[in-house]
Amino acid sequence: MQTKVLLDEGEMPKRWYNIQADLPRPMDPVLHPATGKPVTPDDLHAIFPMELIRQEVSTERYIDIPEEVREILTLWRPSPLYRAHRLERHLKTPAKIYFKWEGVSPPGSHKPNTAVPQAYYNRQEGIERLATETGAGQWGSSLAFATSLFEMECTVYMVRTSYEQKPYRKIMMQTYGAECLPSPTMQTNSGRAVLERDPDTPGSLGIAISEAVEDAATHENTNYALGSVLNHVCLHQTVIGQEAQAQLALEDAYPDVVIGCVGGGSNFAGLAFPFAGDKMTGRHPETEIIAVEPAACPTLTKGLYTYDFGDVAGLTPLMKMFTLGHDFVPPDIHAGGLRYHGAAPLVSRLARDGVVRATSYHQNEVFAAAVLFARTEGIIVAPEAAHAVKTAVDEALRCRETGEEKVILFNNSGHGHFDFSSYDAYFAGKLIDYEYPAELIKESLGRLPVVG
Amino acid sequence: MQTKVLLDEGEMPKRWYNIQADLPRPMDPVLHPATGKPVTPDDLHAIFPMELIRQEVSTERYIDIPEEVREILTLWRPSPLYRAHRLERHLKTPAKIYFKWEGVSPPGSHKPNTAVPQAYYNRQEGIERLATETGAGQWGSSLAFATSLFEMECTVYMVRTSYEQKPYRKIMMQTYGAECLPSPTMQTNSGRAVLERDPDTPGSLGIAISEAVEDAATHENTNYALGSVLNHVCLHQTVIGQEAQAQLALEDAYPDVVIGCVGGGSNFAGLAFPFAGDKMTGRHPETEIIAVEPAACPTLTKGLYTYDFGDVAGLTPLMKMFTLGHDFVPPDIHAGGLRYHGAAPLVSRLARDGVVRATSYHQNEVFAAAVLFARTEGIIVAPEAAHAVKTAVDEALRCRETGEEKVILFNNSGHGHFDFSSYDAYFAGKLIDYEYPAELIKESLGRLPVVG
Repeated sequence: MQTKVLLDEGEMPKRWYNIQADLPRPMDPVLHPATGKPVTPDDLHAIFPMELIRQEVSTERYIDIPEEVREILTLWRPSPLYRAHRLERHLKTPAKIYFKWEGVSPPGSHKPNTAVPQAYYNRQEGIERLATETGAGQWGSSLAFATSLFEMECTVYMVRTSYEQKPYRKIMMQTYGAECLPSPTMQTNSGRAVLERDPDTPGSLGIAISEAVEDAATHENTNYALGSVLNHVCLHQTVIGQEAQAQLALEDAYPDVVIGCVGGGSNFAGLAFPFAGDKMTGRHPETEIIAVEPAACPTLTKGLYTYDFGDVAGLTPLMKMFTLGHDFVPPDIHAGGLRYHGAAPLVSRLARDGVVRATSYHQNEVFAAAVLFARTEGIIVAPEAAHAVKTAVDEALRCRETGEEKVILFNNSGHGHFDFSSYDAYFAGKLIDYEYPAELIKESLGRLPVVG
Repeated sequence: MQTKVLLDEGEMPKRWYNIQADLPRPMDPVLHPATGKPVTPDDLHAIFPMELIRQEVSTERYIDIPEEVREILTLWRPSPLYRAHRLERHLKTPAKIYFKWEGVSPPGSHKPNTAVPQAYYNRQEGIERLATETGAGQWGSSLAFATSLFEMECTVYMVRTSYEQKPYRKIMMQTYGAECLPSPTMQTNSGRAVLERDPDTPGSLGIAISEAVEDAATHENTNYALGSVLNHVCLHQTVIGQEAQAQLALEDAYPDVVIGCVGGGSNFAGLAFPFAGDKMTGRHPETEIIAVEPAACPTLTKGLYTYDFGDVAGLTPLMKMFTLGHDFVPPDIHAGGLRYHGAAPLVSRLARDGVVRATSYHQNEVFAAAVLFARTEGIIVAPEAAHAVKTAVDEALRCRETGEEKVILFNNSGHGHFDFSSYDAYFAGKLIDYEYPAELIKESLGRLPVVG
């Protein structure tokens, strides 16, 4: 009886899968916030390298992964596919539960799958320094890791409250040679403006994005990098799903159910898009693809599908996506990576078209599933990944009722080694299952930008 | 160019390698502290299961790994063997640097390799609960992990100062369902006695051992478990070295230099013993096997080879080993797992006989090597493992001088995700390179027990 399905390094995907090739109609254009007209590559080139801009709008089905990127990805890839035998036995389910384990990357999540190519393409185009923002620290750590391997500089604007609550993340970035600053800082106009109004501000992801974009726009040889939402980020993550397909083929299996958690949407996209491609092109039309989100931030289940900004301050281009309104501030749940008002335009489109089904859970039931997982499979997952665990457990229990021997696959996107204060709060009964914040969302949706 | 050498689960060792079979003369007996006579199995059976007592004194070359233990080990084993291409390039060395990566286990180190079989054998003999001590928390987390998989109870006495400084370790144990108590407690006679004398004591490993042993001796269906030093612990770790041999064979390589850090000695033993066996039996007589320890706790390099207690209080049997004196309290270095006054009797014997060479480093140079490793190979190692990294780097630099294309193999025994406060202290210039504490050691060695 086998626990892990492994691939050799030579079997790691050589191309990313671009789901834009298989959409029934093209993506809606991204709009310039000032003009309401589609943004041009030149608009974006102030902060992004041309190759990533090209990937953002490409409709080629496959895009080659550069050899130098592949070499670095082999530091942890192909990642193992696990069969969760012990969890299955505990649940007494006839279902087969598989998960892709992305916590094996050095920074501990799926994020380096895109941090490495982003650093690579920037360096290829002569960029020597990247600026970015980070909330809980997963993305900042991953970009710090990637830039260290390319001997680039990196500045991470970390939301001040997280910076103070999670000092280990800052030190991790420092170990990789990156600079990590509590945002807002006095080093940018947008940071100074906020601090003048409110010297004691806890900061926010919206402010940190503004600072990082301004940093990139105002410094020589410096670009901006984003860890989720954008098409090229989803693209880079598709190594996960492609590997899973090859690994399941070794088991003579194809999933009936594919599950991933959604914050910005990149880990979900990484696992699900190759299966969604099979579904849309009729090779496997019956696959159920489930996006799971927190009930406290129900973008896909309760949001609107419309044009909105990617950031709180309204500085980014407008994207067509499910959104709760760009100035909606989600309740302070422990899955910090899932506290985003929008969802990747590509993921939103698939949800809109019914290729993907969305569901949501409250955080106490999610942590209960995480603890069950730790005590059966041994792995302590991040609160974000725990949403996928909970969904897989519920699907497996449903199979126990119906007797169906479904193949369930979920993305275990990262470990919880920096999240034990959240587990502690759960054990202490201090986690609040926030009601769906209907009034707040309604207000925020009332302030959507007017387009066209 | 390959980064990782992987084995299939079916290639995981089916037997542990017992180096006692290949020693030129048998081990000196372990002595009862009261009588000075060799301890009997019955003496030990109050707190250990018979099968582990049997393994402790066995001279069979191979001991079968039970199927149920192997099945759990596959949750992370065989662990990958890495070729450190990026580090080699940075060092411009002609040497080939390989490392075995034990940080992939769920608790993050090599410790579960023995925690799992120890829990298994205890449960086989009807034991329902284990008691143990832990310092920094690696061992306590690993035993909590193992007992959770066998649905046993577990109580961990954690040195109070560590309990307070590393709250995440306690929550990790709790997530696995174990009870973690700050030692000394009011729940044992030895704990109460200490607290009566000194209510504000920070605790010590010696006190915690006393509490765990007393707990096991005074509770029904409860045994004691130890995470290093003993022969059966070293035995269980030999999966590491056996896998490394199989993996290097796939590379058509055999190491010229084998390196591991030594605290109690178990991770070193795990990697080195199969190679030491080859060396002693003449198959590979030239292999250099290096045990590296902190200069602040120089057991193998500056200690005496004699009978001493395993614990500070002098409650354990007497073992023939290198020791700095059982009541030597090492300076407060950040590699907490290497702060032990003795070394495993088997490791000590090999050092005594010249099969193993010992060396030592100060902690700032060790952390500098760890940061270099993070920025080239991406992995952030525990301070203990960083000693092995430093030794490998120095061996590789020596090869750059001589032009030798040596094959260097080291054990990367665990990740540093709970050690960032130590990295922070290093970056802040706050790590002290303690002088060799000659006077303290001399005093402590003056209080060795008189035997025979």
